[in-house]
Amino acid sequence: MRNLNAVNITDAVIEQFAGCSDERLKEILNSLVVHLHGFLREVEPTEEEWTQAIDFLTRTGQMCDDKRQEFILLSDTLGVTMLVDAINHQTSDPMVSESTVLGPFYVADPPEAAQGASIDWNVEGEPFFVEGRVHDGRGEPLANVVIDVWQSDSEGFYDVQKELESASLRARFTTDDQGRYAFWTVTPSPYPIPTDGPVGKMLEITGRHPYRPAHVHFMLMAEGYETLVTQVFAEDDPYLDSDAVFGVKDSLVREYELLPPGKAPDGRSMDVPFRHLTYDFGLKASR
Amino acid sequence: MRNLNAVNITDAVIEQFAGCSDERLKEILNSLVVHLHGFLREVEPTEEEWTQAIDFLTRTGQMCDDKRQEFILLSDTLGVTMLVDAINHQTSDPMVSESTVLGPFYVADPPEAAQGASIDWNVEGEPFFVEGRVHDGRGEPLANVVIDVWQSDSEGFYDVQKELESASLRARFTTDDQGRYAFWTVTPSPYPIPTDGPVGKMLEITGRHPYRPAHVHFMLMAEGYETLVTQVFAEDDPYLDSDAVFGVKDSLVREYELLPPGKAPDGRSMDVPFRHLTYDFGLKASR
Repeated sequence: MRNLNAVNITDAVIEQFAGCSDERLKEILNSLVVHLHGFLREVEPTEEEWTQAIDFLTRTGQMCDDKRQEFILLSDTLGVTMLVDAINHQTSDPMVSESTVLGPFYVADPPEAAQGASIDWNVEGEPFFVEGRVHDGRGEPLANVVIDVWQSDSEGFYDVQKELESASLRARFTTDDQGRYAFWTVTPSPYPIPTDGPVGKMLEITGRHPYRPAHVHFMLMAEGYETLVTQVFAEDDPYLDSDAVFGVKDSLVREYELLPPGKAPDGRSMDVPFRHLTYDFGLKASR
Repeated sequence: MRNLNAVNITDAVIEQFAGCSDERLKEILNSLVVHLHGFLREVEPTEEEWTQAIDFLTRTGQMCDDKRQEFILLSDTLGVTMLVDAINHQTSDPMVSESTVLGPFYVADPPEAAQGASIDWNVEGEPFFVEGRVHDGRGEPLANVVIDVWQSDSEGFYDVQKELESASLRARFTTDDQGRYAFWTVTPSPYPIPTDGPVGKMLEITGRHPYRPAHVHFMLMAEGYETLVTQVFAEDDPYLDSDAVFGVKDSLVREYELLPPGKAPDGRSMDVPFRHLTYDFGLKASR
């Protein structure tokens, strides 16, 4: 293991992992080394470029804290997150809802809210009524499904990006006996992923815009079913075909219907225009 | 750009970089996306594995500060640093010295020291006299070459790993009219790369040892010549054939000769045994 050159170094590194007793980890590391070295042999980086890459990765790690995950943003913007999602959740069953990226703004254990409650705590915006049903992938309603929802406000910011003292536009619901869920919120808007870090800079210097089409995030959890992480997009959004994180699927696009003042679908009396989204989810049984 | 799957997402990501006006950056990113996606399609990571990878990269970035560069350690231990070195510095000219990894402990602008000075400030150890000549790659001596040297102490620690108030075992020399350099130090020892971070943990769980064979680092800088970053290893070291960072080359291995008390090569009178290393460097003219 001396005098390694650009050709034989790959085998030398793999040989050093030969003693790894975790076969899966060894498989991953061996493949990583082959592909990483192949990339480097192809682009032949200068030492300055290598230094820039080290610096980029370092700054990306240092941008992370309990409310910001810049490496997830990097994964998202390089299509890695959606590729991993596709590998794990590709389905050809039209009764099973499609998944998409989790994104960097999910917070575990959001506040629990009652069926039909408003979650627009401390924010203002166009009223938006969201409702639907959850079924078992064959059309049978599923009760007691835990649904976490989270979304941006009407200016594109999540609560964790603002100096709010408590959660907002983020809550946990549970489906009723008919598998129904419903809540009031404000209409989300398209927004740029955070551009003040290394990933935003990468998008800027490569001429990519940072915008995501407006969407509401959902995570559905039920015993005996695969957890579904997905989003429902607004059908008139200008960024549907250039989502910065590659997350849009036709089955996840719906009209956020604009309705005039009057009686809302849940009986609430509205004196301003509001929007209405209906989305039914089909879960996939665990294997 | 909707409904992306594990096959067509790679082209979709590359298409988003099509507008990048920096052609070199575009080439690097396109190649990165192809190889990174290829790696992921090969290993098919679970979402939990993807989360572990994000977490590993985050912790690696957060381990870095002005005295610690964990991403360089990661690059070193995956053979990336030596591959980049090989791509940039492969030479078939036996008169030109070979290069090897910079390592994470270089500090720019070390204290200047006079020819023959001792740099064992605030440390104890076996005395070690290091000397040699620098030539132009055809044997002609080069004067005024700036030589930065740095090394571990006899217990394997660099000054920046300890709570020293000033530099130690780290200095800048300048070659004289005959291209000579010389200094007194202490004999370095083999040592583990830092194991208290994510990279050390990676080595541990894969069954790799973290040791590097004993060495002295050199960086040689001269107008009109390529900067040479290299190391000179002790020929009896047990880790020469399993260097954790893949940096050993036969041309960089020399005897650290053990000499009895008496007159040292520079005339100093020694009352304890000491070691002696002679190493001549040949630089490569800049293109």
